[in-house]
Amino acid sequence: MDPLFEFCLRMGDNTLVLGHRVSQWCGHAPVVEEDIALANTALDLIGQTQLWLGLAGEVEGKGRDADALAFRRDAWDFRSVLLVEQPNGDFGNTLLRQYLFDEWQALMLAALKRSTDTRVAAIAAKAAKEVAYHVERSRGTVVGLGDGTAESHAKMQAALDRLYPFVGELFATDATDEAVAEAGIAPLPSDLRAAYDAALAATMAEATLTIPDSRWTHAGGRDGSRHSEHLGHLLTEMQWLQRAYPDATW
Amino acid sequence: MDPLFEFCLRMGDNTLVLGHRVSQWCGHAPVVEEDIALANTALDLIGQTQLWLGLAGEVEGKGRDADALAFRRDAWDFRSVLLVEQPNGDFGNTLLRQYLFDEWQALMLAALKRSTDTRVAAIAAKAAKEVAYHVERSRGTVVGLGDGTAESHAKMQAALDRLYPFVGELFATDATDEAVAEAGIAPLPSDLRAAYDAALAATMAEATLTIPDSRWTHAGGRDGSRHSEHLGHLLTEMQWLQRAYPDATW
Repeated sequence: MDPLFEFCLRMGDNTLVLGHRVSQWCGHAPVVEEDIALANTALDLIGQTQLWLGLAGEVEGKGRDADALAFRRDAWDFRSVLLVEQPNGDFGNTLLRQYLFDEWQALMLAALKRSTDTRVAAIAAKAAKEVAYHVERSRGTVVGLGDGTAESHAKMQAALDRLYPFVGELFATDATDEAVAEAGIAPLPSDLRAAYDAALAATMAEATLTIPDSRWTHAGGRDGSRHSEHLGHLLTEMQWLQRAYPDATW
Repeated sequence: MDPLFEFCLRMGDNTLVLGHRVSQWCGHAPVVEEDIALANTALDLIGQTQLWLGLAGEVEGKGRDADALAFRRDAWDFRSVLLVEQPNGDFGNTLLRQYLFDEWQALMLAALKRSTDTRVAAIAAKAAKEVAYHVERSRGTVVGLGDGTAESHAKMQAALDRLYPFVGELFATDATDEAVAEAGIAPLPSDLRAAYDAALAATMAEATLTIPDSRWTHAGGRDGSRHSEHLGHLLTEMQWLQRAYPDATW
């Protein structure tokens, strides 16, 4: 498989799955302001998905567009990290998951803006502007709830303990990564870890939250070898319309 | 629409939707014995569905078989009562829903055994044997949990208060019912109510549960005019495979 195709799938599947997860909050957030913010975040992520999966289809050259890749693949063909398919849980858990992803995405996009592939660089430049807002907002919420009441602190610490074991997969590096790095298209994920760790340490200190000691990580999402059961249920809902009414237009 | 087609859909959709609901317990029941009993109940109901929807397809004469009717119709084409699409809730709630349905189904099948349509009579004769066990078991559980601990009693009373407003729809009677009754195919649902009420009164007295005063009922399922949101989600899961892989065989 073309490493660039695989790379675009990984980027686009991350934003697609997380975008769908975040959209599940629509109409359910604790206050209207947050509801709208979550919906906007979801829309940004779905917009980025169209760009990444559109480029993936172009690279693949088999006539599949972004819609075909989003709605006609089954779980085992998805290349998203396991972090983004984790259930929303409570509001704090959702925002903590968002922050863990945003911080990584901001670093990745900053590097991709210098990609030798001008299409990749253009998508990154557009997405980076949106993600700058995402990370500012999710970071602020994590700090506010972490350093908040005893109850909000306990919930955020539980969320961090639950989700941190999914962080390592963001920095997994395999032959695909080496090939696109070799071509100057993208950075090696492992090279982003030090900056990520520094940002996380600063945020969690301010949030009075304790980062778990162990770096052990779940994996199997970005290489498609083992997704959690959650992804199948998510796709069942997400792809329902296109499965029930193939090629429907409106 | 042929009243007999509509009648068969109503019978088959009831058992299909309830069968799917009950199957959701598989692997989750409180003890192995109950898990197996629930799975067996679900299998009986799905088996009855094949007979009713098979006959529906035969009556319709458009080449749709039981699978096509079960897996290729959307929510608005379902003719199941709202009772059977209600969420499982806890174990007691599930068994109370089952009892409310079983008692009705036993009366309906007893009358259908004398149907002028020999195909209907044959399905009823087969199903009635299974349903005799269902009602014995669900009745026993309702009595045991109702007249059990303070906690089990409270849960069963809450379940009865929640589900009783769906009972009336089982006895709703419209032009379709009048047409099949006129032809001697099936009884008028409204004619079954007195026997049902007597059975329910006896069971609930033994279970020390109080039947709500009001006979007001939700409706809109068996005439397809208004299903609850639950049915769409149930069908999304139930029809996933056939939607994702149309005409798959194995």
